[in-house]
Amino acid sequence: MDILSRVAEKVQKETGVRLHRRNVERLLSAVLNTGDFWKIVDLSDLPVPAASGIVKSFVEEGVLFIDDAENILLTQRGYDLLEELGIEAVVDFSCGACEGRGYPFYGDKELYRTFVELAKDRPGAIRDYDQGAVTPETTVSRVLFIDSRGDLRGKDVLVMGAEDDLTGLAVALTRRARSVLVIDIDERLIDFDKRIFRELGIDNAEAKVWDLRKPFPEDMLGRFDVFITDPPETFAAFRAFIGRGIATLKEEGCAGYFGLTLRDSSIFRWKEFQETLLSEYGTVITDIVQDFNHYMNWEYHPQTRAAQIAPVKKPPKEIWYRSAWFRIETLPGFKRWNEPISDEVFYLDEEGSTT
Amino acid sequence: MDILSRVAEKVQKETGVRLHRRNVERLLSAVLNTGDFWKIVDLSDLPVPAASGIVKSFVEEGVLFIDDAENILLTQRGYDLLEELGIEAVVDFSCGACEGRGYPFYGDKELYRTFVELAKDRPGAIRDYDQGAVTPETTVSRVLFIDSRGDLRGKDVLVMGAEDDLTGLAVALTRRARSVLVIDIDERLIDFDKRIFRELGIDNAEAKVWDLRKPFPEDMLGRFDVFITDPPETFAAFRAFIGRGIATLKEEGCAGYFGLTLRDSSIFRWKEFQETLLSEYGTVITDIVQDFNHYMNWEYHPQTRAAQIAPVKKPPKEIWYRSAWFRIETLPGFKRWNEPISDEVFYLDEEGSTT
Repeated sequence: MDILSRVAEKVQKETGVRLHRRNVERLLSAVLNTGDFWKIVDLSDLPVPAASGIVKSFVEEGVLFIDDAENILLTQRGYDLLEELGIEAVVDFSCGACEGRGYPFYGDKELYRTFVELAKDRPGAIRDYDQGAVTPETTVSRVLFIDSRGDLRGKDVLVMGAEDDLTGLAVALTRRARSVLVIDIDERLIDFDKRIFRELGIDNAEAKVWDLRKPFPEDMLGRFDVFITDPPETFAAFRAFIGRGIATLKEEGCAGYFGLTLRDSSIFRWKEFQETLLSEYGTVITDIVQDFNHYMNWEYHPQTRAAQIAPVKKPPKEIWYRSAWFRIETLPGFKRWNEPISDEVFYLDEEGSTT
Repeated sequence: MDILSRVAEKVQKETGVRLHRRNVERLLSAVLNTGDFWKIVDLSDLPVPAASGIVKSFVEEGVLFIDDAENILLTQRGYDLLEELGIEAVVDFSCGACEGRGYPFYGDKELYRTFVELAKDRPGAIRDYDQGAVTPETTVSRVLFIDSRGDLRGKDVLVMGAEDDLTGLAVALTRRARSVLVIDIDERLIDFDKRIFRELGIDNAEAKVWDLRKPFPEDMLGRFDVFITDPPETFAAFRAFIGRGIATLKEEGCAGYFGLTLRDSSIFRWKEFQETLLSEYGTVITDIVQDFNHYMNWEYHPQTRAAQIAPVKKPPKEIWYRSAWFRIETLPGFKRWNEPISDEVFYLDEEGSTT
């Protein structure tokens, strides 16, 4: 067995995160680009516990070492190994204009300026709710993407559990939807939205506190054209956010939007999520744009499991947490999932670490 | 039943293409943008037989009419209906820099210039093989996308049945892959590639004639890190191109790239394709970038079923045929599909029309 497979197997056993040898190869590619652990996680598209386990294993094997400034570097043995395996650095040709999203935020400059101005006073992210906001450029690009897909103008839009990103606020600011309902567990964010809707006289948007672990009442089901959300990535949370989101849609041809990351769940779990979307919920996937959502670093980082298991103490400085942007569409026979969910493993499981 | 549902049901019965009312709604949105039938197909993301059937039905209903210059226009009754239903024009905020792909072709200007220069002498598209080339900007963007995903440098790359796009040639021109094998049914294209490889001294690239309806010989299975293809969109062709592509991959974590369009297959069929990818082949979908592939108009258009069933005789002038760019990844237990395929419905079925 080659060293990549051996490390994959060992780290999988230690962390419970599923891995294969090419995941390990990708991490070594990333080390050729940067010594910063958090950027290595970003470039290697792995859950933090896996990336951390791989780095620690390679330090033990004498392939990597960590210097006094907490940079992760290749040893001479490491360089020899990479050359032998033909592993090269990660390259990135993504678009500078739209940051690779395909939809640049400056497509609606007025919306961007208004949003940034209003978002200055947003409440800070708190750990209890697994919060962490995307950049204003991400939020505005989301809105332009949704509008370009025909899912905004004249539509009834539900934004659920994503108000740390103020996505519902941005949707409402366009005044293009027929109606907007923002729901979130965090009263601070709901009050923030309510105040702005009132001050700006936006009378087709509402904001309400709601805990998505609870089933929706009957009158929420089949009421919307579009839902937008950004779930924690346990299976329980996926059902609570996405399953319930689908339950709110009116008919076939309605759309759901959400972020899924590889930083808190593995590509193996993505497959399970995708199977659930297709076979159980009866939807089709129309878009997956990698690295669409860029998250600003959150203040509670030092308390996260990610910080505790990382091979370095240095906190992240640049953006490292990104997620893909999914769009799904309902087809005839789609299923409205709306069961209650227990607290257990809602925010955290073996692959997640940033809560 | 409202008029949109009624038209959806009628056209589905007449054409055999599955439809729902929001597909019909989207077509009416598109008529607010343009009177050109082929641009309407483009904007409404529907198979040509469906779009054509919907236009004809609405002409019968007095919602649309076709003027002397073969423009498709709303009648007064049409305008009233759209206002009543709250249907607005399609908007497009996609990036001008990368044409919405996220990866601009000018990321490697040298590659682009060389490719355009060489491609001048390419053989023309022929109908027998369902050919139709993407723009040079598309081909080069494909290569930069693949490189950015870590699927080019030092890899063994198979490009199958996509040489009308000269994707294999572009991959080979980078000289970044470990090896490139181009296979296609069309001897003219294979000879073209061979000549260029010889003239430029590219000695790690090969080109061979192959009919993908035949199973691959044993020595092709498990030999590549990456495959790239662009199949016709019948189920038989999907299996021949994608199923066989997966069969050539070495191990878990290898990647496949291909285009799928909504112009020749419905979103219903996309769901079936996706279920096959996940549940039968054991792969996961990592990327779906809509409208990534832009096709230049092909000379044999007047002979296609699309031209015959269209409500207008005017041929397409601008680019209207686009497809999404998919990336899939193998996971442990993935299946190597390699059965023989009969000629029947290989190129054409009820949803397809551009062969």
